[in-house]
Amino acid sequence: MAGDDERPGQLPVDQLLGSTVHAELLQRSLTLATAESVTGGALADLASASPGASETFVGGVVSYATAVKTGLLGVDEATVAQDGVVSARCAEQMATGVRSLLGADWGVSTTGVAGPTAQEGKPVGTVFIGVAGPDGVAAHELHIDGDRAVIRATACRRAAELLVAAVTGAPGDTP
Amino acid sequence: MAGDDERPGQLPVDQLLGSTVHAELLQRSLTLATAESVTGGALADLASASPGASETFVGGVVSYATAVKTGLLGVDEATVAQDGVVSARCAEQMATGVRSLLGADWGVSTTGVAGPTAQEGKPVGTVFIGVAGPDGVAAHELHIDGDRAVIRATACRRAAELLVAAVTGAPGDTP
Repeated sequence: MAGDDERPGQLPVDQLLGSTVHAELLQRSLTLATAESVTGGALADLASASPGASETFVGGVVSYATAVKTGLLGVDEATVAQDGVVSARCAEQMATGVRSLLGADWGVSTTGVAGPTAQEGKPVGTVFIGVAGPDGVAAHELHIDGDRAVIRATACRRAAELLVAAVTGAPGDTP
Repeated sequence: MAGDDERPGQLPVDQLLGSTVHAELLQRSLTLATAESVTGGALADLASASPGASETFVGGVVSYATAVKTGLLGVDEATVAQDGVVSARCAEQMATGVRSLLGADWGVSTTGVAGPTAQEGKPVGTVFIGVAGPDGVAAHELHIDGDRAVIRATACRRAAELLVAAVTGAPGDTP
């Protein structure tokens, strides 16, 4: 698990990044599925924004309620009880869960606290990104300064960047 | 099934509409789930954008691949074979499917052709919105002029408007 200190990114999420995700996957004949909590669908929106996105993007689950995380994505009840839903373990299980559920080569997940108040004792801006691929899964912890919209957009941007790094084998980001 | 001729809407999707969806559901203690194809996650993004959204928004499925529509949302293979995935029947089955899958009071769905090319013989801009509630389901057919981004944003906005009309019992839009 890597730690990052995050700064607010561009708003809205950079369409160019969506094209990059699609192009890097397409070049390798790989597919992607998303599992989102804190980003609420914005990451899937990015993944599907490019013409021809259906060649690489299978789909995703927006698991806003905890019951969707456990019931549909297969996050362990023990993870929720011990680590909480805003945790590295939950992010990893969401990513592996959606990868398996939708039959994709890669799964990427987001879970965190967008505010306005802290959750599970974790401050606003705490975000975990999970990236699951053929060789395993990794989680990345972010601490993002900004309002709700900035936190969501930055989490989405970083998730896409971490996915691209993992898919292309950039040092330090491959599971 | 109602027919609409659509004009390009605001870009990006109106955040005020997200607040309206949340407020109308919250006032009635109702929950929502989304099933998206053509809007690719933007509708879930809208539903989850407001602070406190987790009180009304359970989550959603982005069923970009046909296999996700049939395997996860329960769209009939016969619907796909006979009507296609860009059809009123598919939109209805996506909405009822996600409502059941995620245990929400209301389900709303989008399926359509964002381009750049026609699909299933249906022209770019053809969109079907499904709205499923406690009393049944309805589909609405749209024909949207504009590029890929405009089609997605307008579909998302109309889906939210049709949902609000159905939840609040506006004439002609209640299933």
